Amino acid sequence: MKTLNELAELIGGTVVGDGEVQIHRVTGIDGAGPGEITFLANPKYLPLLQTTRASAVMVKPGIEAPGVSLLVCSNPYLAFAKVLTALHVTKPEVRGVMEGAWVDPEAKIAAGATVYPGCVVGKNVEVGPGTTLYPGVLLYDNVRIGSDCLIHAGVVVREGCRIGDRVIIQPKAVIGSDGFGFAPDGSGYFKIPQVGIVVIEDDVEIGANCCLDRAALGVTQIGRGSKLDNLVQIAHNVRIGADTIIVAQVGIAGSTQIGTHCTLGGQVGVAGHIKIGDNTMIGAQSGVAGKLPAGEIYSGTPAIPHQDWLRAAKTFAKLPEMRKEISRLKRQMEELQELIKEG
Amino acid sequence: MKTLNELAELIGGTVVGDGEVQIHRVTGIDGAGPGEITFLANPKYLPLLQTTRASAVMVKPGIEAPGVSLLVCSNPYLAFAKVLTALHVTKPEVRGVMEGAWVDPEAKIAAGATVYPGCVVGKNVEVGPGTTLYPGVLLYDNVRIGSDCLIHAGVVVREGCRIGDRVIIQPKAVIGSDGFGFAPDGSGYFKIPQVGIVVIEDDVEIGANCCLDRAALGVTQIGRGSKLDNLVQIAHNVRIGADTIIVAQVGIAGSTQIGTHCTLGGQVGVAGHIKIGDNTMIGAQSGVAGKLPAGEIYSGTPAIPHQDWLRAAKTFAKLPEMRKEISRLKRQMEELQELIKEG
Amino acid sequence: MKTLNELAELIGGTVVGDGEVQIHRVTGIDGAGPGEITFLANPKYLPLLQTTRASAVMVKPGIEAPGVSLLVCSNPYLAFAKVLTALHVTKPEVRGVMEGAWVDPEAKIAAGATVYPGCVVGKNVEVGPGTTLYPGVLLYDNVRIGSDCLIHAGVVVREGCRIGDRVIIQPKAVIGSDGFGFAPDGSGYFKIPQVGIVVIEDDVEIGANCCLDRAALGVTQIGRGSKLDNLVQIAHNVRIGADTIIVAQVGIAGSTQIGTHCTLGGQVGVAGHIKIGDNTMIGAQSGVAGKLPAGEIYSGTPAIPHQDWLRAAKTFAKLPEMRKEISRLKRQMEELQELIKEG
Repeated sequence: MKTLNELAELIGGTVVGDGEVQIHRVTGIDGAGPGEITFLANPKYLPLLQTTRASAVMVKPGIEAPGVSLLVCSNPYLAFAKVLTALHVTKPEVRGVMEGAWVDPEAKIAAGATVYPGCVVGKNVEVGPGTTLYPGVLLYDNVRIGSDCLIHAGVVVREGCRIGDRVIIQPKAVIGSDGFGFAPDGSGYFKIPQVGIVVIEDDVEIGANCCLDRAALGVTQIGRGSKLDNLVQIAHNVRIGADTIIVAQVGIAGSTQIGTHCTLGGQVGVAGHIKIGDNTMIGAQSGVAGKLPAGEIYSGTPAIPHQDWLRAAKTFAKLPEMRKEISRLKRQMEELQELIKEG
Repeated sequence: MKTLNELAELIGGTVVGDGEVQIHRVTGIDGAGPGEITFLANPKYLPLLQTTRASAVMVKPGIEAPGVSLLVCSNPYLAFAKVLTALHVTKPEVRGVMEGAWVDPEAKIAAGATVYPGCVVGKNVEVGPGTTLYPGVLLYDNVRIGSDCLIHAGVVVREGCRIGDRVIIQPKAVIGSDGFGFAPDGSGYFKIPQVGIVVIEDDVEIGANCCLDRAALGVTQIGRGSKLDNLVQIAHNVRIGADTIIVAQVGIAGSTQIGTHCTLGGQVGVAGHIKIGDNTMIGAQSGVAGKLPAGEIYSGTPAIPHQDWLRAAKTFAKLPEMRKEISRLKRQMEELQELIKEG
Repeated sequence: MKTLNELAELIGGTVVGDGEVQIHRVTGIDGAGPGEITFLANPKYLPLLQTTRASAVMVKPGIEAPGVSLLVCSNPYLAFAKVLTALHVTKPEVRGVMEGAWVDPEAKIAAGATVYPGCVVGKNVEVGPGTTLYPGVLLYDNVRIGSDCLIHAGVVVREGCRIGDRVIIQPKAVIGSDGFGFAPDGSGYFKIPQVGIVVIEDDVEIGANCCLDRAALGVTQIGRGSKLDNLVQIAHNVRIGADTIIVAQVGIAGSTQIGTHCTLGGQVGVAGHIKIGDNTMIGAQSGVAGKLPAGEIYSGTPAIPHQDWLRAAKTFAKLPEMRKEISRLKRQMEELQELIKEG
């Protein structure tokens, strides 16, 4: 519970109306009631400002609404995230190593960390203060996890992998599975041992059921602040720069490097051993087969500049008609040629 | 073990031949033997009726086969499913909370429920009668699971999510992971807390390794009787209607609504914030970027009416030839124009 | 630690230089130092041979490099894999059934097997000698696992499934989840019980978070020596031949048969009830809708011969231009026809 004035201070906004009203919850604009704050991101919902029973609404500058208190801020979306955090997020309870957790005596669990039942922690593992291992987290030997991390239920981290501070890993993600490497030996395949590790830098979030393969030699790396959605596949020796967004079900093949501040749409596939520059955006379901420069938008398989892809994709349905048109033109052309020859 | 007459009664069919023969097993038509029942769905296997050693065969009306008992029914596929259930499916043994399960003292596990070793059950969780939590199921606080559910090994359900009656969740599915939401804050990304839940209605089945993200605010919802195959990604605030089929590796982005009785083929991607009408079918690997009306079939990326896509996709391979043809026509056109000008 | 001569004997290569030098580690060519061996697969790195501080380099015949010892071998990639194995891979410690593992008294765990804490092993399960069940492996009743397998953390194997010898399963893979089968019953769907199993033959590797569904009746089968990357979906009754490579995020629908020595690129989708011949290659992200003959390369959705696809895909971006060209030709044609009619 906070007053509107307190929230204004938190987000650097200004109050129009009653700053002392108590706010205890954030909700969507249509169902909001007293004691609740909501936000107006889309102008089409402006009329709802007349009828909302919310105690306050976060809005951009320039909006007026008599009868309801406003929290005016330049970036209501970011303000919404901050207010939501202030009102709804509590630090997980510190409970230490709980009964039902199996921790190797040679592991170092910091005071202020929590290890739930069903966790198994190997030799020489280090877990920093403020970090929570939810139930069923399985850490192989020599794993290092920093401070203030949330490692959700059922996450596996294999031997030697390193995770920074304030990292969030959603349930069941796998960190450090073997990279997919086999040398043909004439009849079948000989496994190439994968003796590298995965390094996850500070402030990264990894989605549920993601797979991050350990490097063959060296490291697979996720740069500071990058966010991976669910079911993403990161192959061995991939390196992803800082603050890059990777949407669900993307697959990135081995040794590829992705720049900083990139966005990869859902279900994108990226070939191995290529480089994608900084600030690149790749449309959903695209297939990237070769390197891409920085700062551009690409779509399609193989990926081409997004505007070109949009135009071509729109024309795709016309293909049968175009083909018929070409046949007709061919026939007409032959008739004309015949006519002229005769004439 | 049941007699053929008993099976006929169960499925509402009629026996032609020996109704008292004992049936203990369902098998495929080619390997079937005495005491076994098989079924004939595809007419191309009709000749096998002469040689099968099965004690009985489920067939559509109008088929004759002297020497083998027939179970005649209007829908042999549905009959097959029901007979298979009658002969092969036993309710899981009720074993209570077993040793090796970690159940918070404030959780309520109904009499008649089973909790296997390796499960971890949080505070205020409720589990209904007849429900089985297979080994390693991990339930966060305040989860509610109805009656007669099968929650398979390693499933994670995060805080506050609600699951109806007779729900089946295959191993390792994740229910209630954080939705993927981040507000750019100038340099990097600020996490938007995901404080909603997931609601799974009655009679739903969720495949292995699926990810169903909790809502930012409110609920992510899977409608009654819907079936999700493996590795499906459901983003935050998605709502799926009743009796909808979603095949493996589909991804549905945030806040999208899918109607009832839809079918989404494997590896389909659906963009966020759109609406797909009831009874819609979407072909495998399609990419849906905008809203779709009810009752139609769509394919391709971006999705277009299925028949149009089929025609266009068939023409795709002709593109290089078409391009050459156009060049040739252009050249011929210029020659003709030249000729006529001269003439 | 081995001498260069010992490594030469191991891989069937010859030493040029000091065969008695001690080698303890394999590294990449640029960071290598004394006591380390590296390899030269790509000729563009030849100049690095002059400056490397490595004690030895694995090279193809015909390469000279005064000042550094060479290990000459016909297949440096395979040699690299073997040397890496010799220097870096140790058999996992045999620890028996450890405290914190829950093993049914009717399960048979061979002497020489290891069962880590957090594992749950059902009735009548058999685990062979030399096999390691890493933490949190969950085996339902009647599962059979051969000898010298590595079953990584959190893997689930459901009832009755059978796994051969020397099989490696990466973390969290699910073996034997229910196939996706439902019979429409007029209003909704009736579940078709999936009473078959999964059979994984010897020397197979299964990636992290893969899903291999049990057969409806009979078996789903992965042939000897085949390798599946992460997040692969194998539906019920699929059969995959020996030594086939399936890259990450591939989905194969029900009852399809894949030959031996095939390669399926990442994110490929294969329809159900079709047959793909031996030695077939399918390009990444392709969609295979019908049967494919042996020994060919296919790409695209629907898949066509790879060279045709490459040409067509290259032309795709030209579609809008082609359409304009056709319109222009049509106009010009009409003008000409008009002209000739008049003339």
